[in-house]
Amino acid sequence: MASVAGPEIDRLIQLLARLPGLGPRSARRAALHLIKKREALMTPLASALQVAIDRIQICEICGNIDTRSPCTVCTDMRRDPSIIVVVADVADLWALERAGATNGFYHVLGATLSPLDGVGPQDLTIDALVSRAHDPRVTEIVLALNATVDGQTTAHYITDLLGEANVKVTRLAHGVPVGGELDYLDEGTLSAAMRQRTPF
Amino acid sequence: MASVAGPEIDRLIQLLARLPGLGPRSARRAALHLIKKREALMTPLASALQVAIDRIQICEICGNIDTRSPCTVCTDMRRDPSIIVVVADVADLWALERAGATNGFYHVLGATLSPLDGVGPQDLTIDALVSRAHDPRVTEIVLALNATVDGQTTAHYITDLLGEANVKVTRLAHGVPVGGELDYLDEGTLSAAMRQRTPF
Repeated sequence: MASVAGPEIDRLIQLLARLPGLGPRSARRAALHLIKKREALMTPLASALQVAIDRIQICEICGNIDTRSPCTVCTDMRRDPSIIVVVADVADLWALERAGATNGFYHVLGATLSPLDGVGPQDLTIDALVSRAHDPRVTEIVLALNATVDGQTTAHYITDLLGEANVKVTRLAHGVPVGGELDYLDEGTLSAAMRQRTPF
Repeated sequence: MASVAGPEIDRLIQLLARLPGLGPRSARRAALHLIKKREALMTPLASALQVAIDRIQICEICGNIDTRSPCTVCTDMRRDPSIIVVVADVADLWALERAGATNGFYHVLGATLSPLDGVGPQDLTIDALVSRAHDPRVTEIVLALNATVDGQTTAHYITDLLGEANVKVTRLAHGVPVGGELDYLDEGTLSAAMRQRTPF
């Protein structure tokens, strides 16, 4: 390769290949696409990356990613200060915002507890969450964590720590996904959906 | 989205989503990954893009992409000047070089003839190819074009134009892919492989 395209293009391909969703082959295709669309795509992308490098920071309150700290969500005064929605990752926060699922504030843990991967409580922003939960305006902590073993372990751990705070701890409902077919659902989800059935 | 992550991140996601192989969802994931790995990935990628923007050019002889013109391939004096391998795209040139398939020089057409897409002979570098074919050192033009209708149309068109040049025009063999199973091959490929069978 080096003899064909030169080290600069090789380096670009290698870096692109480290993005999630791109392998060596698709990174090559992406690099060629960028080079062909130099004015329309490569130049804007380079400057967008530079802007992001210069301006993006992590919100000191909730852990969201934004160009200012406190972030746009934390400074939005129309939101309900009584609810804090706990998510593992910024991607989860974005997903909930896209869905317009809540009007509360957020708290990004940064990860879920995972002893096998060496992720312990000290790697998560749990202390900050506990101190936010002691704010007298806060009445409910919603644990919007993945329905996986790690996610649920984290949820239990946080629930224990929040025992002293005067808040209600809730979690997302388990149930049938909207548009989902019963026939394809696993037994655990079906049982949970039946147990938590709601009046129609 | 704009209210969560700010316009700078939105813009980065939109630009990433225009890369082949990335959609809106995977572009979001890629953007988050970049932001999380600011020092290790985002900064190097931004500078690699800037280097590529500043230095990459198109080879004046063959149409390859490189940081110099004439490109590394065209200035490689160990190559055989009697062979010119005609490819549609730079990606095809890279593929042949990865395979070490030829020791000749290349000529990148830029596309294949495609009347339905409005791609005519004037959009391809066919004139330059014909004039290169009249170089007395050149004895063979290998048409390494896709085995599609457009590719074969282009091959026929070029073959006609090269009638006056004193060169042999060849094309890639059709046949069974290495590692391929006969049972899964289409009839056209099998017939071609049988017709062009070689001594064992």
